[in-house]
Amino acid sequence: MPMKLSQVGEFGLIERLRHRLATTQNAVVGIGDDAAVLQPTRGHVLLVTADALVEDTHFRCSWISPDDLGWKSLACNLSDIAAMGGRPTHAVVSLALPPDLQVEFVEAMYRGMRTLAKAHGVGIVGGDLVKSPEALMISITVVGEARPAHVVLRSGAKVGDAILVTGALGASSAGLALLESGKPVPRALLPAARAHVRPTPRVQEGQVLGASGRVTSMIDVSDGLAGDLAHICEESRVGARVALERVPVAPACTAVTKMIGGDAIAMALSGGEDYELLFTCAPKDVERLTRLVKRTTGTAVTEIGHIVAARLGLRLVLRDGRSRDLRGGFKQF
Amino acid sequence: MPMKLSQVGEFGLIERLRHRLATTQNAVVGIGDDAAVLQPTRGHVLLVTADALVEDTHFRCSWISPDDLGWKSLACNLSDIAAMGGRPTHAVVSLALPPDLQVEFVEAMYRGMRTLAKAHGVGIVGGDLVKSPEALMISITVVGEARPAHVVLRSGAKVGDAILVTGALGASSAGLALLESGKPVPRALLPAARAHVRPTPRVQEGQVLGASGRVTSMIDVSDGLAGDLAHICEESRVGARVALERVPVAPACTAVTKMIGGDAIAMALSGGEDYELLFTCAPKDVERLTRLVKRTTGTAVTEIGHIVAARLGLRLVLRDGRSRDLRGGFKQF
Repeated sequence: MPMKLSQVGEFGLIERLRHRLATTQNAVVGIGDDAAVLQPTRGHVLLVTADALVEDTHFRCSWISPDDLGWKSLACNLSDIAAMGGRPTHAVVSLALPPDLQVEFVEAMYRGMRTLAKAHGVGIVGGDLVKSPEALMISITVVGEARPAHVVLRSGAKVGDAILVTGALGASSAGLALLESGKPVPRALLPAARAHVRPTPRVQEGQVLGASGRVTSMIDVSDGLAGDLAHICEESRVGARVALERVPVAPACTAVTKMIGGDAIAMALSGGEDYELLFTCAPKDVERLTRLVKRTTGTAVTEIGHIVAARLGLRLVLRDGRSRDLRGGFKQF
Repeated sequence: MPMKLSQVGEFGLIERLRHRLATTQNAVVGIGDDAAVLQPTRGHVLLVTADALVEDTHFRCSWISPDDLGWKSLACNLSDIAAMGGRPTHAVVSLALPPDLQVEFVEAMYRGMRTLAKAHGVGIVGGDLVKSPEALMISITVVGEARPAHVVLRSGAKVGDAILVTGALGASSAGLALLESGKPVPRALLPAARAHVRPTPRVQEGQVLGASGRVTSMIDVSDGLAGDLAHICEESRVGARVALERVPVAPACTAVTKMIGGDAIAMALSGGEDYELLFTCAPKDVERLTRLVKRTTGTAVTEIGHIVAARLGLRLVLRDGRSRDLRGGFKQF
């Protein structure tokens, strides 16, 4: 019979979850003390990132299952470590839970988290469980590691560098539009919905790119291609040219816009939460890196533009050679 | 003029805070990339802890200032690292903020956090800022470090060990009762209110105790003496005897109960959030550790009982020699 959180209490819930998480601990001391004790790898730096998801701001329980919600909450953190060229090793999970939430909901969330954590050898080693008056909130911190020479920052892009992106864009944004429409999701459009609720962080790709030593800057596409490229340009003090015809639009995105309307290219340019990796490298390294990522991970990499001087701004080059401000959005065309 | 968050946006707020936090960075790469990059100290293990505070569950904005709220949110995390015998080094701060909150409120929160962080050499190196539909939520992860031999767990208490506690208990709980009463706080009772809204984590004391190599188990008093001693007993598979007459009741707690009623001893036994350190050691080390902590930090340590076999349970020994279940609460007497 479903049990509400108020029936088991904080410590009852911790005991239930602790038992289930034991297989992904991967720590000297995990859940059940004041802090987790981890053994850092010699010669590596530590990477720390945090992301919070709040009900009705980032998701609605009407369209995401607790299992997917757990997966996604961890995925966006793993993606941040990947974008540094690092290997995620541990996660701490803090949940603010409404008292009438069912214990099974929380357990399913941990199931989703654990599935993804296990796939990448990440230990869930602690956190906090507290009561929320209303909205469900998930706050996760992920710790990772990398050799210092493999860490890739946002700030290293140089004028002349090529701009590349893994996979394809827009599926997550299309999936969100689909889910928010409130209509039943046709089977053919499930990949878009799935891209939104259960995204694939490019964990292996990020490590391969970091270890290559040839990536000059990297970020994950969480705010959208335009916004995240702007972050790279700001931190690197450069500008960018993106060729519209080269931007890889996800087939799932195109399929959704054909069925429910919307602009697939706008979604690919500005839609967030694709969790692809956006990076730069010297032009001479484009082919080598593209082949390396494809061979080691199976993931396609596409060159979409190049870095220019800061004063030239961020521009999107159209098919006819004219250009527009990339961050102005695409809908206005 | 006060500005609402919705007027400056997420990135505007990050820029304002990033500037102010620059002085406490203390990292290879801090705020402004996908993850912070930290340099672990060779020969040390890593400690990671997380705590979340939610409006109307853990605090009310009617009785805590934003500056104190920031301080307290960080303090409870530093206390967890102290309870492991470690040195806190870095914090990541995730905030879920209602859109009509004023920017100045958030900046004051960071001011409080930064004041405490700076006092302990802790760098605030990242986090996340998201929108909350209603309640303000603060989720902080603190990373620390310790030499492996100095780490103190909850699980090492042995039968015959003495039980000790730093400082005095009950002030925070009394302060909460005072604040929740809604009445104006008389000047004489300000120390109790302050103990609740701006607690002192025993950061130095924890490190001194850890480095002594003579502490067999340790925890911070966040759930209350009875509850936290129960955690030590569960993890160490032992029982405990606490002598009622030895429990150090904070003068601020006694003062509050004299004025507004309530049971000072019950508050000292069961009231949470004092953030004192509760620990065990061999009887022969009691005097040495007490003197060591007093000499290096100025903080008093009191021996309040001893560890017994698990089957003997957790008992509170009264003045007449009779005993009661410690966790049964004291109010029933």
